[in-house]
Amino acid sequence: MIKKISIIGSGNVATHLGLAFKYSGVKIQEIISRNKESGFALSKKLDCMFNNQFANFLKTDLIIICVKDDNIKEVIKKLPNISMIHTSGSTDISVFDGRKNTGVLYPVQTLKKEIKIEFKSIPICIEANNEVFKKKLISLGNKISNKIYYLNSFQRKHIHLAAVIVSNFSNFCYIIAKKHLDNYEIDFSLLIPLIIKTANNITESDPIDNQTGPAKRGDNKIINEHLKMMKNKNYKKIYQLLSQNILEEYEK
Amino acid sequence: MIKKISIIGSGNVATHLGLAFKYSGVKIQEIISRNKESGFALSKKLDCMFNNQFANFLKTDLIIICVKDDNIKEVIKKLPNISMIHTSGSTDISVFDGRKNTGVLYPVQTLKKEIKIEFKSIPICIEANNEVFKKKLISLGNKISNKIYYLNSFQRKHIHLAAVIVSNFSNFCYIIAKKHLDNYEIDFSLLIPLIIKTANNITESDPIDNQTGPAKRGDNKIINEHLKMMKNKNYKKIYQLLSQNILEEYEK
Repeated sequence: MIKKISIIGSGNVATHLGLAFKYSGVKIQEIISRNKESGFALSKKLDCMFNNQFANFLKTDLIIICVKDDNIKEVIKKLPNISMIHTSGSTDISVFDGRKNTGVLYPVQTLKKEIKIEFKSIPICIEANNEVFKKKLISLGNKISNKIYYLNSFQRKHIHLAAVIVSNFSNFCYIIAKKHLDNYEIDFSLLIPLIIKTANNITESDPIDNQTGPAKRGDNKIINEHLKMMKNKNYKKIYQLLSQNILEEYEK
Repeated sequence: MIKKISIIGSGNVATHLGLAFKYSGVKIQEIISRNKESGFALSKKLDCMFNNQFANFLKTDLIIICVKDDNIKEVIKKLPNISMIHTSGSTDISVFDGRKNTGVLYPVQTLKKEIKIEFKSIPICIEANNEVFKKKLISLGNKISNKIYYLNSFQRKHIHLAAVIVSNFSNFCYIIAKKHLDNYEIDFSLLIPLIIKTANNITESDPIDNQTGPAKRGDNKIINEHLKMMKNKNYKKIYQLLSQNILEEYEK
């Protein structure tokens, strides 16, 4: 059983995961991070040691790598030969290159240090390179979340792609709308109930059935009026492309 | 004071508005609709008369026009000279062309007959062609919603444009993600907590500060991998355009 862990990184994922494990009773041994400021701050939050050297690691059951995707490979090279996992949606498990117990614990959520989150409801995708370690990781995952999925690297990468679309692109739509309304000093918060309801509708029915609006209705008059109303050329292009695709989707 | 109303139309807006008024104690006189089936069904729900003829209107304090934007003008021509409003986000108040008491009551929400909604929390944009009627409409709106805004046609049209972007485009992102995962038989519902959290984040901070993901980080490697993973050419184009715009937004 995994009773104590060390975390590499002190960013958004390291922070939320560290706190979730701490609250679930798993001991955090140390935070290992090149960033002295955020690393030390996180170690204080988690009541553990801070290691800035990537050397003299404390004895631990598992190292969790929470660094940028591009740095995972390089970090692995510096680690002693103990069980280790990364938390990336898009990085293949093969990145560990023959080490004994390796795996992935990918939380499917948009995590920002500053924004609180109830970790129990976050789906976690687990992968492991052997059956014994798989069981250990699932049991570890269950301590912080009620929703553990076992997926291979291929499936996880597609989940990550889909997550970018539903989360990053939706949020960018909110940004476009806010910037548009800001031009006319119209209060963006008027749209909050609509945004929340649109998201919540997917818990009741398939998004295909939830679509509304001028493009769904094939209302080209409104679409053209809206295009004329938009000042920003790039946003206009986005409005046009998305409307065109919705039109085609529902013409079928 | 407006004590009894008639509603023209029997679609999504007519249904939700009719029910909200009924529950608030406003008497619905009749449903006027060319669609016999849905019109009669709605009149039964609202416990009122059904009129399929656009003639012999029952005496009422207000007619609420809930038809497709393109049909509003034509419907107005058929109406007797009493107070009337439409419920369209994108139609100018000038459509009423000189009638005495005219206005708008635009609920900023995505409404589908089949999906229940708590009307009290829906923002409603009101407009009227004179001060006395304005007060009456605001008082009527207050019966069904806690969030009444008085906006002119110009402002309302921009709210409607922004509503399309935050709601219709976000939902289309959910569709793209679902269709993508369906190709690999991966469960879309895994993304539900992420979708809900992304929407809820705007209640805590500005969407500009909530953006995450590869495009925000300038991670072109992941973006290119995702583009290779997408089969549908149109969806790929959308991924590319949105990522490009997010990249530019955060490069500034």
